[in-house]
Formats: sequence, structure tokens, C-alpha cells
Amino acid sequence: MRITDIREATASIRSEIRNAYIDFSGMTISVVALEADPGHGRAPLTGYGFCSNGRYGQGGILRERLIPRIEAAAPDSLLDDRGRLDPFGVWAAMMANEKPGGHGDRAVAAAALDMAVWDLVAKAEGKPLWRLLSDRYNDGAADDRVLVYPGGGYYYPGKGLEQLQTEMRGYRAQGYRVVKMKIGGAPLADDLRRIEAVLEITGGGDSLAVDANGRFDLATALDYARALEPYGLFWYEEPGDPLDYQLNAEVCAAYAGAVATGENLFSLVDTRNLLRHGGMRAERDWLQVDPGLAYGLTEYLRILDMVDELGWSRRRLIPHGGHQLALNVAAGLQTGGSESYPGVFQPFGGFADDCEIVDGYARPSELPGIGVEGKAAMFAEIRRLVDT
Amino acid sequence: MRITDIREATASIRSEIRNAYIDFSGMTISVVALEADPGHGRAPLTGYGFCSNGRYGQGGILRERLIPRIEAAAPDSLLDDRGRLDPFGVWAAMMANEKPGGHGDRAVAAAALDMAVWDLVAKAEGKPLWRLLSDRYNDGAADDRVLVYPGGGYYYPGKGLEQLQTEMRGYRAQGYRVVKMKIGGAPLADDLRRIEAVLEITGGGDSLAVDANGRFDLATALDYARALEPYGLFWYEEPGDPLDYQLNAEVCAAYAGAVATGENLFSLVDTRNLLRHGGMRAERDWLQVDPGLAYGLTEYLRILDMVDELGWSRRRLIPHGGHQLALNVAAGLQTGGSESYPGVFQPFGGFADDCEIVDGYARPSELPGIGVEGKAAMFAEIRRLVDT
Repeated sequence: MRITDIREATASIRSEIRNAYIDFSGMTISVVALEADPGHGRAPLTGYGFCSNGRYGQGGILRERLIPRIEAAAPDSLLDDRGRLDPFGVWAAMMANEKPGGHGDRAVAAAALDMAVWDLVAKAEGKPLWRLLSDRYNDGAADDRVLVYPGGGYYYPGKGLEQLQTEMRGYRAQGYRVVKMKIGGAPLADDLRRIEAVLEITGGGDSLAVDANGRFDLATALDYARALEPYGLFWYEEPGDPLDYQLNAEVCAAYAGAVATGENLFSLVDTRNLLRHGGMRAERDWLQVDPGLAYGLTEYLRILDMVDELGWSRRRLIPHGGHQLALNVAAGLQTGGSESYPGVFQPFGGFADDCEIVDGYARPSELPGIGVEGKAAMFAEIRRLVDT
Repeated sequence: MRITDIREATASIRSEIRNAYIDFSGMTISVVALEADPGHGRAPLTGYGFCSNGRYGQGGILRERLIPRIEAAAPDSLLDDRGRLDPFGVWAAMMANEKPGGHGDRAVAAAALDMAVWDLVAKAEGKPLWRLLSDRYNDGAADDRVLVYPGGGYYYPGKGLEQLQTEMRGYRAQGYRVVKMKIGGAPLADDLRRIEAVLEITGGGDSLAVDANGRFDLATALDYARALEPYGLFWYEEPGDPLDYQLNAEVCAAYAGAVATGENLFSLVDTRNLLRHGGMRAERDWLQVDPGLAYGLTEYLRILDMVDELGWSRRRLIPHGGHQLALNVAAGLQTGGSESYPGVFQPFGGFADDCEIVDGYARPSELPGIGVEGKAAMFAEIRRLVDT
């Protein structure tokens, strides 16, 4: 196996939505194509990857640092002992001469490239990625259905309670049970009215998660905690700055319900800091680190080992991002579930076109690799951007 | 005052040196020029900035995110109430629609741009930056000499003890008193021989700092701590991963000497986490956050306020980077000192050409702004890259 070409491009996933922190009118992602010659006269393979949403495309870092390092690496250093492309070898090559710390845009760039590597590795074995992960890292065990929830309930201009309810009714009609909505972009009293409007649709707090997107200071986070607690929500997400472990610990200490956070932690060490210093409760809270933002599946496997060592169950991990990588990870490694984006970040949000949501669960694709070919509009855009 | 143009380019600062983590053969930085029309018929002004070393140029983030946002901002939002360019307004504009967390490459890009803003702001008042900082933020107090030490003692191919001693003798001849050398790129026994060779030059441990660049696991960090303690060193820098606060706390608990860290923390929240969770001792240890990497002087001013609130003296801060921004910050805000790079990362390392080092102290430039015009080789390279 030899890598023969790596291409990248920037795709727009712009929309008019906003959360409590940013709007998405200029949001982009990076898309990567990785070509390899398997040797022995077999047909060339192409792996596709992209980064998850929220942190912009990373073309500069891909073009100037990560891709040239892989191209300059000794080809055998990128292979495992059976001559197969080795994601850990590729990861080490692209991260050579990078200092520790500073896990931000670099982690996003690496995640896009790493996804293409895993797509290709699974295609080379003719397996869906979730099956390959199950075989290699989970003793053959896998979930044939994965808990999913739509990341929705965004603020956008002119959106009132009725439109919010219509949106949520739509998710339920699509088969979702747990739904999520944004909070923190309006005053507390308005947000409580929004929450109560959605509870009319879900019928109970255990099917509604709320997401503050890191907006609150400690006092506001605790005000919301007190106000939210009676609803018995599925979770209260990212109350404060994602790196303010002390704030998170104070919210966990004050709030009887579940807290979820981690989508803005981009490395093993940051995630470990959350578990060490953030007051998270292993029997109740949720870790949302996104393998599409945080150095890819390769780093996520290391994070799973670390989480095991600290005594957490993998079932407490539900990755952010709503992409097919996360769905494969959840199925093959038996995490707690995956976010989904049926309506936003198109054409990259959501799963394969034939993926039906039944009783709040999704089935991963049976296509070899990550299954990008099974989402027609997304695959067309990927091919337009990075196929020669 | 109106910003009329912002240009950026990538400069090489490649060299054959290496520390315990990376080599610098492909190291780059970003350089920025910011032009503004002061109005009232006055001549246009140009501010220059660059990012500090170690994390590569950030052209992609500058071109795709930070510069377009400043160009799109309402011009008045970039001015203070006297119509002067406002670094805080520019900072808010360039960081719009950026999510919290993930402080890495983005922080480096912002630092380069922010340096150009402060250079221009000080030039507009005809003052050196350290004087402007003293006037605005330090009740007119300033240090007319700043403790500096050369970041040196790198590993490079073929470098033996004799060359290391020659290097250190050179620094002492230039007027430096405290010198720094790398450790962790060789086995402990070899590093101790290197340290003892340098101690022959400095005469005592209180003039020698050692830097592991985040290389060690806990056991190795503690092995080194035990071996280093008898030397009474100036400091033991970055023993483990910069974000492993627990490791840092264990080293601080075990090591009677001073610990220094922070060059790989790129935000206020990460720095606050170090102070909250890292076991740092306010009477003894050193914070090395680099305003040339961590969102610029604008964020550094916020960090100084946070450090004050947590009961630390500003004298415990000695920024990494060895650039003229850090020298201005140290003089005008009375921090503990500044790193210096007389020999490496040329032409960007080190201070103005007329800056003499006397008894281990440097004088900041009297030129308006940051003083980049006073370092001829650097200024020529900057003009070649970003002047029209």
C-alpha cells in the first residue's frame, strides 16, 4: 500500500442559524481525499474525510504542515506490520515537529485527514468502518442500532415558539425521541418559555436536552441549573466556558440532573483534565468529545483507553457532530450514542440517505468505509471539491 | 483613524536546532502589516507584527477568518471614544463567530495581528509601546531595565560539551547573567553532564535555567527533579505536557526549587487552569505565557488582571519568546523579565540592534511603537514580505 495523492478543499456549510455564542453564516469545513495504490495489481482506493462543524476549514494547516509531512514520510513508516495503511503511523507522521499543547485548529485539520485514512483502511478490507472497529478494538462486539438525537432548536431571525414546536414535531415524525435545543441566546425567562413549548411536544423532560454552548458565567450557569432542575431534562450541556473546569464542577455539585460537555475539548489531555478537575459524575454525566474535531478517530481510540483507565464507561460518551464517523464509532465501539444533524450543516450534517431513525435509534451504513457514498448530496459535493 | 489595508506573509525562521520535542528545520512565523489613515491630513501609519516562534505561520487563519472580519467590521467599532484605534475593538472584531475553547493556532494568528495593532497605536502617539503601556495601564510606572536570559543550549547534530560551553561563554560575554539550556533530548546522565559543563561557566545554579519542553512523563519528571534539586537552579521548565496540571502539581510538591511553565498555554482560561490546578507556588514559580502566541498583548492584559485577582505578583511572569513585544511588556507593565533569543530564530529573535545587555538586563527601545525598525535585519525582512 502506497499513498499516491492527498487533496484538500474548503466546503461551505453556511446557514442562518445561531447558538448562544456564534452565528454560522460563514461556517466552513475542510474536505480531504486520500488516494492509495494497494499494490498486487489491485485497483486504487480513495478515502474521504471532512472535519466536523463549528471550527472552520483548516486548509492552511493541511497544506502547509500536515499533508507535506505525510508526503515526506518514509512510505513504510505509514504501514502496519502486514503492509496495510496504519492510521497511527500516518498520525505520527502528520504530527511530527508539532509542540505539545495548543489543541485547537490543528486538531480539526488532523481530524479531517484522519477520517480519510480510516475510510480508506476500512474500504481496503471491504468493511464498514464500524465493523472494522468492532473487529480490531472491541472483540467483535457492536451495536446494530445507535441512540441518536438531533442537534437543533437553534435561534434564527424571526423564529418564534410556534416554529420551534414545528421543528421539534418534525424530528419526532422522523423517528427521533430525544431532541435538543439551544439556550442562552435569550434571557432566562424567554428560554424557559421556549423549553416549555418544546416539552409540549416531547411530553417529558427525559426526551429534551438543552445546550448553552459555553455562554454562561458561574452565576448565570447556576441560575439556569436551578431553573432547569425541575424539568428532569436529558442533559444540560456546556453551561460555561468549555475549559473552565471549576465552573463545571460547581454546576455538577449544584445540579441533580445530568451535565454534558466536551465538544470543545480537542485532545486527550484536555478531556482528561475535564475528568480530573471538572466534577463530572461517572454514573450520570456525558462526554461529547468529537472525533471529527479532536485529532480524529486515532486520538479518540486513545481517549477511550484513558476514559476506561479513569473508571468511566464508554456508554457515557456521545460524540458531538452528527456525522457518519461518529455513528460508526458509536456502533463499532459501543459508546452511548451520537448526535445527528438532519436539518443543518447540509449537505454534511446527518447520516446516509437510507438511514431510518426508529424509536430514536439509527442503523449505521453497510457500505465499506465510513459510508460517505451513501449520502448522495454530500458525496456529490465532496467529489466536486476533491476528485480530480 | 481608519484601517486602510492589512497584509500578511509567512517568514522562515528555520534552523538546525532541536529541543526535546521538535526540530526547527521547517519553522515559520506569520508577519503582518496594518496600515491606517489617521485623518486630519496626517501621514498614514503602518504597524508591524509577527507571531512568536514554535507554532508555525498562520496564513490560512489570518486570510480566511481574522483579516476579513476586521475589514468587514463597522469602522467605528474599531475605535475608542477618542477616535483612536482600539486594540480591544479590533480584537473583538477578529474573534467574532469563534467558539470558546480550542486555543491553539487561532491564538497564534491573533497574536501576530494584535502586535501590529499595538505597534500602530503606540506609533500614533509617538511613544515606545512600553511607555504607552506604562501610561495607560501601570500608573506611569515602568522599569528602565528588564531581566533577560537567552533561550539557548539547544541540541543540534554534532554538538558536544565543548560547543555547549562555548555557546554559554558567548552569552556571558554579551552581558547575560542567567542562561538557559535544553534538557530531555538526551538520557538523564548525559543531561547532568551537560548541566555540569554549563555550571563551570555560570559558576552557580542560580544563573542556570533548564527546559524540558514538555517531554517527560511523571516518573521521568520526578527523576529529573530529584537529580536537579541539588544544583539550586534558576528554574526547571515545562517538565511535562503543558496541559497536564496534575503532573505539574506533583513536580511542584516534590521539587524545592522553582518551576517555570506556560509558553504552551494560549489563553486566559488555560493559564487560570494552571494556577487553579497546577500546584504552582506564588512565591517561587514562574509563568511564561507568551503574548506573541496567546492572542496578543490584548489577551495578556486580561491575563495580568486575572493573575492579580488570584493573588500572584506580576513579577512572577517572564514571557517566552525573546521578541521586542515581550521586552516592551516587561518594561511597561513591570513583569519579571523576558526571554531573549540572541542567536536563534533569526532575524526575528532578540532585541533592537542598539540594545546592550548589561549585568543580565536589557533596555527597551526608545523608538515609537514596538521598535521593529531598530532591528535592521528583521525590519528588512518584514518590509520585503509585507510592504507594498
